[in-house]
Amino acid sequence: MLRAAWQRTGSLLCVGLDPEPTRFPAALGGNRGNADPEHLFTFCRDIVDATAPYASAFKPQIAYFAAHRAEWQLERLIAHIHAHHPGVPVILDAKRGDIGSTAQQYAREAFERFQADAVTVNPYMGFDTIEPYLAYPGKGVIVLCRTSNPGGSDLQFLDVSPTDGAATARPLYQVVAEKAAGEWNASGELSLVVGATFPAEIARVRGIVGDMPLLIPGIGAQGGDVEATVSAGKTADNTGMMINSSRAILYAGNGADFAQRAADAARATRDAINVARGV
Amino acid sequence: MLRAAWQRTGSLLCVGLDPEPTRFPAALGGNRGNADPEHLFTFCRDIVDATAPYASAFKPQIAYFAAHRAEWQLERLIAHIHAHHPGVPVILDAKRGDIGSTAQQYAREAFERFQADAVTVNPYMGFDTIEPYLAYPGKGVIVLCRTSNPGGSDLQFLDVSPTDGAATARPLYQVVAEKAAGEWNASGELSLVVGATFPAEIARVRGIVGDMPLLIPGIGAQGGDVEATVSAGKTADNTGMMINSSRAILYAGNGADFAQRAADAARATRDAINVARGV
Repeated sequence: MLRAAWQRTGSLLCVGLDPEPTRFPAALGGNRGNADPEHLFTFCRDIVDATAPYASAFKPQIAYFAAHRAEWQLERLIAHIHAHHPGVPVILDAKRGDIGSTAQQYAREAFERFQADAVTVNPYMGFDTIEPYLAYPGKGVIVLCRTSNPGGSDLQFLDVSPTDGAATARPLYQVVAEKAAGEWNASGELSLVVGATFPAEIARVRGIVGDMPLLIPGIGAQGGDVEATVSAGKTADNTGMMINSSRAILYAGNGADFAQRAADAARATRDAINVARGV
Repeated sequence: MLRAAWQRTGSLLCVGLDPEPTRFPAALGGNRGNADPEHLFTFCRDIVDATAPYASAFKPQIAYFAAHRAEWQLERLIAHIHAHHPGVPVILDAKRGDIGSTAQQYAREAFERFQADAVTVNPYMGFDTIEPYLAYPGKGVIVLCRTSNPGGSDLQFLDVSPTDGAATARPLYQVVAEKAAGEWNASGELSLVVGATFPAEIARVRGIVGDMPLLIPGIGAQGGDVEATVSAGKTADNTGMMINSSRAILYAGNGADFAQRAADAARATRDAINVARGV
């Protein structure tokens, strides 16, 4: 589904949907502390419809909905994307990480309740956290590998001794990439999250995982460089990445023309990515 | 709040609330696939009221509610615990792991929306995942350290080279314990999750973290041994642990007397813990 969307849209841009009511335009209650859940739906729907021509994926972040009792609005938003922009994958950014029957409940939440096409998952508890999602054929599981935040190095960059049979010591995130490319990827539906703020590490992960898709946050508001990211992460066919931008698109404007401003920002980001990958 | 509850109740038992509708008694729709969210509330409320005399904490697992669109029932359940069993901490088992403004939304979800007293958090993304919760004074943050599932070893047991300034190589979970006992514990409100299936590792963590409370799952259905667990994890004053049991209590019976059977199981577990700690 993702590969088809890349081809059809000619875009590697993933639009992240992190609705922060305090940053909404005035007509949607901007700058008020306690948001009307319906405003979250309306804001995201308008962003989706305006940016869809430039996006090959959407990534709603569930925390922004859960904090405002807006699960029902998130369900409707994803249904709206499926109905009006068919074939565009919806990634539920939930970073779930649990095991056994609990992970089954999270998989049910993501794939049955919210009808997401893929979900982000945290690997700290090991393969047990990933396996229950693989029971859903055709659904993607996107595992955190190297995250773009400063504290990402606290654990992910720790040096793992080669006592696990590897030839050399290497940072923890590389062990995650090795497992995701190997024993964990029974379904062939795994992807990895690798932050745009570390192009050299994107390249190292790409070297480990072949043409596995990478979800790359950190473009835009987080300061990652598009050219270096694309050069490090692209596959032989010039795809292989879901390059995410959230705030730089969502809050490009906060007036009545916020959706048009978001569309302009999405188009510019798509174009910058396409220039960098030479298409 | 937790230490006061240990003293007042004379119990270290934490009752985990993982409601699985297919295991409910017939009167609550047991064995039907699609649960009525109200049955989740009723089942958990009855378990809470029956087991409260033997418990010093309750730990609802949010996935079981989210999979059934039962967030509103979870809010009411926690409100019920606060109203009818005041002073008993409610741990929201959510294992959230995200950063910055997203983590702020999760903190708002846990502490403002659900009114939990503590929340479980995944450390893979580093201190950035923990810091936003510390903005809520008096609220606990319980960080995954060594989990009781088989796949827990996939990453947590990897050997970390002493390139981070430590004297020797040691497994990743020990690095998490070191950070939680040190630089991450700015608020003094951190705890750690350490599974009961690994008593030797509980002892090692206890040696690192002083008298920090440990949340210990894996007693009961997961097969952890009470005596070995208590001996490994207790502090000098014979407390220091939230020893969790979920399924062995919740599903002790599935007839009309399920709540009484749960109470019996909770009392027996409390007693076994108390015998092991010699009180």
